[in-house]
Amino acid sequence: MIVTAEISEVRLTRWAAPAATWGLVPTMGYLHEGHLSLVRRARAENDRLAASIYVNPTQFAPHEDLATYPRDLARDLALLEAEGVDLVFTPGDEVMYPAGFQTYVQVEQLTRPLEGASRPTHFRGVTTVVAKLFNVIQPTRAYFGQKDAQQSVVIRRMAADLNFNVEVIVCPIVREADGLAMSSRNARLTPEQRQQASVLHEALYTAMTALLDGEQDGDALRAIMGQTVQTRSLARLDYASAADPLTLQELSQVRGDVLFSLAVFFGNVRLIDNLLVTR
Amino acid sequence: MIVTAEISEVRLTRWAAPAATWGLVPTMGYLHEGHLSLVRRARAENDRLAASIYVNPTQFAPHEDLATYPRDLARDLALLEAEGVDLVFTPGDEVMYPAGFQTYVQVEQLTRPLEGASRPTHFRGVTTVVAKLFNVIQPTRAYFGQKDAQQSVVIRRMAADLNFNVEVIVCPIVREADGLAMSSRNARLTPEQRQQASVLHEALYTAMTALLDGEQDGDALRAIMGQTVQTRSLARLDYASAADPLTLQELSQVRGDVLFSLAVFFGNVRLIDNLLVTR
Repeated sequence: MIVTAEISEVRLTRWAAPAATWGLVPTMGYLHEGHLSLVRRARAENDRLAASIYVNPTQFAPHEDLATYPRDLARDLALLEAEGVDLVFTPGDEVMYPAGFQTYVQVEQLTRPLEGASRPTHFRGVTTVVAKLFNVIQPTRAYFGQKDAQQSVVIRRMAADLNFNVEVIVCPIVREADGLAMSSRNARLTPEQRQQASVLHEALYTAMTALLDGEQDGDALRAIMGQTVQTRSLARLDYASAADPLTLQELSQVRGDVLFSLAVFFGNVRLIDNLLVTR
Repeated sequence: MIVTAEISEVRLTRWAAPAATWGLVPTMGYLHEGHLSLVRRARAENDRLAASIYVNPTQFAPHEDLATYPRDLARDLALLEAEGVDLVFTPGDEVMYPAGFQTYVQVEQLTRPLEGASRPTHFRGVTTVVAKLFNVIQPTRAYFGQKDAQQSVVIRRMAADLNFNVEVIVCPIVREADGLAMSSRNARLTPEQRQQASVLHEALYTAMTALLDGEQDGDALRAIMGQTVQTRSLARLDYASAADPLTLQELSQVRGDVLFSLAVFFGNVRLIDNLLVTR
C-alpha cells in the first residue's frame, strides 16, 4: 500500500496503468465500519483502490469542531491496508490549500436547506475538496455514505453539472446495535450522551411508522420526530425534516418518496441521521 | 475529424487510446488567426487534438451580446479540419446546462478587478464552462490566448486550485496589420469603427513608451492610455489599467513587471487588449 501526501506521487501511481479502473473512498479518517463498508464495495468493483484521509478545514465553520475532530492515522492506515487498499492520499493543508488558493465549487439550491441552513459554508467546502480529490485521483468510481444524505445529493449534482468522468456511488448507513448511525463524532459523546444518542434512529422510525399508519402531513411528521428527540434530557434538536429526496424541499403532504432527516446536538457534538422511504 | 454534440461520443473518442496525449483548444467559434495559432501549437505538441465550439451563455450578462455574437459553424469546421484537428465538440445548451443545473466554479479575488468590475458574472461563467470542458475532454494540455489576459490568469488559478490534471498554455496575441488584436467581435464593427479600433493597440504602446522613457506613476500611465483613446471620436473608454501581472491589482508605481490593459466600446461592441511588459 502506497501512502503519500504528494499529489505528484498519486498521479504517478494512478497513471502507471491507465486502463485500470480505480475506486476512491474519500474520508476524514477515524475510520469506522461505515467507511469500511464503502472500502469493501469499492475493492470489489474496481481494479485498484484509493482512499483519502483529510480533515478538510473549508467544510468547518470557525465555531465548529475542526480542532477536536478525532484523528488516528496509524489505526486508519492499518485498517485500510487490511482491506487491500492500494493507495492512500494523506495531504496536509499546505498541499490542499496553498497560499493564494481562491477557487471554490458551489452547488446552489440543494445546499440551502437542512445542513446548509445550519452550516451555510459547509457544502462549499465539501464540493470544493471533493472536486479537488476527483482531479487528484481521477477515479472511475467514488463512494460516499447515505449517512450524509444531503452531501450525497449535492455531490451527485456537482459531478453531473461539472461533467466529472466519475460514477458516484452511495452506500447504505451502517448502524450500531442500538440503531445509532456510525460516525467518527460518536467517539466524542460521553457515556450518558452515547446512551441517549439512539434517539435519532428512534425518531426516524417513529416518523416512518406514523407515515405507514396514514399520517401524511409534513408538519405532523416533523413534529413527531422533534417530540421523540425531546424525550431525551441531553438531546437538543437542530432540525427535523420530511423532504423531497431529489430537491430536498420540505413536503407539506407526503404522498410519494420522502427523506426523513434530523440533526441533534448532544453538548457541542452534533449528530445527523436520515431514513429514505420509497414507495 | 469527428464532430459531435454528445459528451458520450467525446469520451469514447478520448479514451479509445488512453496513453495518447490530447490537446484542447476551447473556443466560442467564428475562428480567426488567433484561434488558429492556438490550434497549430496544440497540434504540434500533442498526439491528438480536440477543439470545442460553444458560445457559453453563462459568461454573458443579460444586457450583453450573446444573441449577436457572430457564428459560422460550417466555416469553423472547415478551418479546424484543415489544421488536422481530430475531434470537435459542438454541444448545445441542453447538453451543457440541462434542467436543474446549479453548480458553479468561482475564482475569487482575481475575478474582481478589470473585466470582473465591468462584467461581475463573466468569470464565473468562464471558469464553470472551462471546468466542464476539462472534464468532458480530459486533455493533457489546454490552450488559451493572451488576448484575454485576465481570463488566462483566472484559468491558471482555477486549474491549480482545483488540481486539474491539465497543463494550461497561454499563447501570444495575434494582430491585424494595423495592430488591432484579432477578435470574433471585430466583425461587428462598422468600417469607421474598425478604422479607429487600432487605438487600443496604440494606447498600450504609448503607455509602454512612456514607461520606458521613465514615467513610473501608475495614474499617469493609465491617463496616457485614456487620453490616447479619447483621440478617436467613436471610442468610449471602459477602463485603462496598469496592474501587477500576477495579482491584477493596480500599481501606484511601476517598478517591475506590468500588465497594461484596456477595454473600449465602439457603439455596443466592446473590445479589449493588453500588453505585458516584463523587465
